[in-house]
Amino acid sequence: MPARIENITLDVPGILKPKGIDFINEAAIKIEPDNSKVFTVSKEIPYDYLIISTGPHLSFEEIPGLGPDKGYTDCTFTLDHAVKTNLSWKKFLEDPGPIVLGSAQGVSCFGPSYELAFEMDAELRGMKIRHKAPILYLTSEPYVGHMGVGGLRNSKRFIEDEFAKRDIKYLTSQAVEEIIPNEVRLKDGTKLPFKLAMIAPPFKGVPAVAPLGNPRGFIPVDKNYAPLGNPRGFIPVDKNYRHAKYPNIFAVGVAMAIAPPEPTPVPTGVPKTGFMTVKMAKTAAATITAEIRNEPLPSAEELSVVCLMDMGDTAALMKAYPVLPPRQESVLKGGIHYKWLKAAFEKYFLWKMRNGLTNLP
Amino acid sequence: MPARIENITLDVPGILKPKGIDFINEAAIKIEPDNSKVFTVSKEIPYDYLIISTGPHLSFEEIPGLGPDKGYTDCTFTLDHAVKTNLSWKKFLEDPGPIVLGSAQGVSCFGPSYELAFEMDAELRGMKIRHKAPILYLTSEPYVGHMGVGGLRNSKRFIEDEFAKRDIKYLTSQAVEEIIPNEVRLKDGTKLPFKLAMIAPPFKGVPAVAPLGNPRGFIPVDKNYAPLGNPRGFIPVDKNYRHAKYPNIFAVGVAMAIAPPEPTPVPTGVPKTGFMTVKMAKTAAATITAEIRNEPLPSAEELSVVCLMDMGDTAALMKAYPVLPPRQESVLKGGIHYKWLKAAFEKYFLWKMRNGLTNLP
Amino acid sequence: MPARIENITLDVPGILKPKGIDFINEAAIKIEPDNSKVFTVSKEIPYDYLIISTGPHLSFEEIPGLGPDKGYTDCTFTLDHAVKTNLSWKKFLEDPGPIVLGSAQGVSCFGPSYELAFEMDAELRGMKIRHKAPILYLTSEPYVGHMGVGGLRNSKRFIEDEFAKRDIKYLTSQAVEEIIPNEVRLKDGTKLPFKLAMIAPPFKGVPAVAPLGNPRGFIPVDKNYAPLGNPRGFIPVDKNYRHAKYPNIFAVGVAMAIAPPEPTPVPTGVPKTGFMTVKMAKTAAATITAEIRNEPLPSAEELSVVCLMDMGDTAALMKAYPVLPPRQESVLKGGIHYKWLKAAFEKYFLWKMRNGLTNLP
Repeated sequence: MPARIENITLDVPGILKPKGIDFINEAAIKIEPDNSKVFTVSKEIPYDYLIISTGPHLSFEEIPGLGPDKGYTDCTFTLDHAVKTNLSWKKFLEDPGPIVLGSAQGVSCFGPSYELAFEMDAELRGMKIRHKAPILYLTSEPYVGHMGVGGLRNSKRFIEDEFAKRDIKYLTSQAVEEIIPNEVRLKDGTKLPFKLAMIAPPFKGVPAVAPLGNPRGFIPVDKNYAPLGNPRGFIPVDKNYRHAKYPNIFAVGVAMAIAPPEPTPVPTGVPKTGFMTVKMAKTAAATITAEIRNEPLPSAEELSVVCLMDMGDTAALMKAYPVLPPRQESVLKGGIHYKWLKAAFEKYFLWKMRNGLTNLP
Repeated sequence: MPARIENITLDVPGILKPKGIDFINEAAIKIEPDNSKVFTVSKEIPYDYLIISTGPHLSFEEIPGLGPDKGYTDCTFTLDHAVKTNLSWKKFLEDPGPIVLGSAQGVSCFGPSYELAFEMDAELRGMKIRHKAPILYLTSEPYVGHMGVGGLRNSKRFIEDEFAKRDIKYLTSQAVEEIIPNEVRLKDGTKLPFKLAMIAPPFKGVPAVAPLGNPRGFIPVDKNYAPLGNPRGFIPVDKNYRHAKYPNIFAVGVAMAIAPPEPTPVPTGVPKTGFMTVKMAKTAAATITAEIRNEPLPSAEELSVVCLMDMGDTAALMKAYPVLPPRQESVLKGGIHYKWLKAAFEKYFLWKMRNGLTNLP
Repeated sequence: MPARIENITLDVPGILKPKGIDFINEAAIKIEPDNSKVFTVSKEIPYDYLIISTGPHLSFEEIPGLGPDKGYTDCTFTLDHAVKTNLSWKKFLEDPGPIVLGSAQGVSCFGPSYELAFEMDAELRGMKIRHKAPILYLTSEPYVGHMGVGGLRNSKRFIEDEFAKRDIKYLTSQAVEEIIPNEVRLKDGTKLPFKLAMIAPPFKGVPAVAPLGNPRGFIPVDKNYAPLGNPRGFIPVDKNYRHAKYPNIFAVGVAMAIAPPEPTPVPTGVPKTGFMTVKMAKTAAATITAEIRNEPLPSAEELSVVCLMDMGDTAALMKAYPVLPPRQESVLKGGIHYKWLKAAFEKYFLWKMRNGLTNLP
């Protein structure tokens, strides 16, 4: 059963209103942390506390020809892009050929590209045309299974084996120079022909918190602008997700900064999954509540992460505490029941969100 | 039970005669495609259709010291050579030492060398002398398990593991410079001592179809000679195995040309197994029949391949459709029952051939 | 249950006396093989036969800063050092941090460092602080699982996988330049910070048999001194463990010399385990007995080895015949029951020794 838009979107204002929360559907274009104000194109919004949970700016503009809007590659990171990709996929099936998919330099979310590789493989086999569509997984990771977290248990060998079994080739430690129609050009000079390409773009903080004068895509604000984020626009926070300089500003999810576990030859970022984001948001909220009530701040635990990775004809469970190595606990297991669990979790999570039941686990 | 010659040879004229097919047991030395004639040393044979299914020319002469006839290595690719090898093996067992076996540059049939490695290991263990005979698998493949087809599923890791378990060492991407008594000399300068060496020779097309003036071993025919084969003597054909230029010439089996799936640092060729050859021959025959009957030509399917690899104390099933990646379907499984299946298939196949029942599966 | 000193030490004089064997607890400082005399600081001891089974000289002095006595690293190879290490470990647990452990250049006993890595990992997980103590396995081996014997079956992949599952990182083919407080400095310039370091020292023969004039740590004896050992102080022997030049001198255990199976980029030695040493000693004793009785000398079989490696939460059985490849027989298997077997064997072996029952298997 194909996903329908209404099944995977939420009526955010409707969910928030009963809880007494206003929802303003406008992009923030500036923050004045010294004045405690956020600006959108039409509004000036004062705040006591500010929680920045914008997610990333998908920085397609850093690589010429990247992305579905001004370039030649597809992407499923936004609903619009996913809808476009659906059309590209259908067209591709009429006359299949080489697929290139994966993650450009500066990506900090690798899981979806792995899922895409596995899902496309399974889909194409189902249609008996897999041999007409070579799949190349292209990535900035230093090895497959790195995932921005330095790997998880034997994830390197696990992915190598699962890719080998499925004839999915891969290139690691790669940076993309540019995309032209039907060709990915890597910084090392390699040219990769494609009929369909899905390359995750570099991640950045959103313009409102990013440094001024970025060569591509950021909105210059004013001369005295002191950005909240680091050079890539991610916001440094303490263990309670509070901004290093402004105690009434918090950042959670992709917006906040996590140092990578190790330098990689091509830059990669640490993923901040939905699971992690929910935990961060709860800690930030509890911290603000405690502060208002003049109670002791909650002691923030190290983040853990649980992931269910779709693998087309099977799935895998990944669990890590802490997120980055060395870890006290880690799990990596494959099994079809994780696919069922993933489907069930999606339904449960959307039901929970739709009904505002965020206090449920 | 050791194989006896009469159990593995066929009375070809006797099998073909009842079907009204003449068998001339002479090597073709020249083809005149414009005149539709084949020449042997004693005969001039006109044809309406010509099907070239000669198998390879085993090009021992390309590597000084290679081969059982003028060199120092053994081989099992012809009956004569296999009989000689049997004597070498018995002599070797009296005073065992290092074994070097594998495939020289330009080989396009790797399976038998893998089988030899596994079989010798099992045989020597059975005699409790394995520790006196280090086995080195030497190959032009870029990695073990490549097999000329870019690997099959996780064949690289599969062979690495099975070799490791059996103390079989390996050297990949190697080309042989020359063989002297008890020493293989590689192009990179490495010298490998041996008591027994079995190195598969480079494969070429037979002289009758190969380019003139090849420095070693080919018979110069005449000055206006336009070879049917490519520079290595393999014959380019279309999907129905018909020659690119001469529509009444077909080529099947090792004689025809398949482009490799990827360039390898040391040249390797794509294997054309017996299984594949039978399919090719049936397609060629059906094409000629259809043409004669003025019916639509059969649409040739992409080749698939099924292999049963003997591994000494076990065996493996390999299945691929198509032969080269990316593949719609592929299987790689180990198991002792594949050894029984291989033995049973041999009996079945020889019975089928002996009785001319080629219409059976 | 922690080990208590009295449970793992033996009353050697008490065990030997009933058998009519004197025990002199003094280090030999010189051997005069031409005069058949051994010297200690206080004694001059003539002999008919001499069996050298001293074990190694732990050559901490070859690497500045190495070892528990004059340096900054711990070690469990002697009882004193093990007792010290126990204190270091307890202190470490109060404020954990990076662990570096493994084997310096010239080590010929790798198993204990593998066991340490696995045991520390399990211990730290049990205390729920594993994520505060990154473990780095540092070694002169060319790859993990080499163990000085060129690996055992798929030991490379086995250790890679087991280390990956436990977040134990590794560096291979490394030589240590020096140790300063909280930092291991490698010859290639790498600096490894540590809170706890346990690096096995280079192995040498003991001073009494080693070449004169060694720059560090050996006692100069006299000018006409001809050492019994090779340049590293290990004693070359024949298959009955008899010295090459002096027929009334034998050497068994770490004291004797075994050529490595292959040169390694950084020098490593072949381990001589307790299991092997017992076999050597029995062969040497039988040879002497036969000679005295004027009987034919026992034909010495090639050495085999059986090892039970503790892996913290599990264990592994390793078996090899012969010790070095190629092998007639080899086993590498993991399983918790090998841990029980190891514990049981320790009790059995100490009981056997304590009661002088060396004729038991």
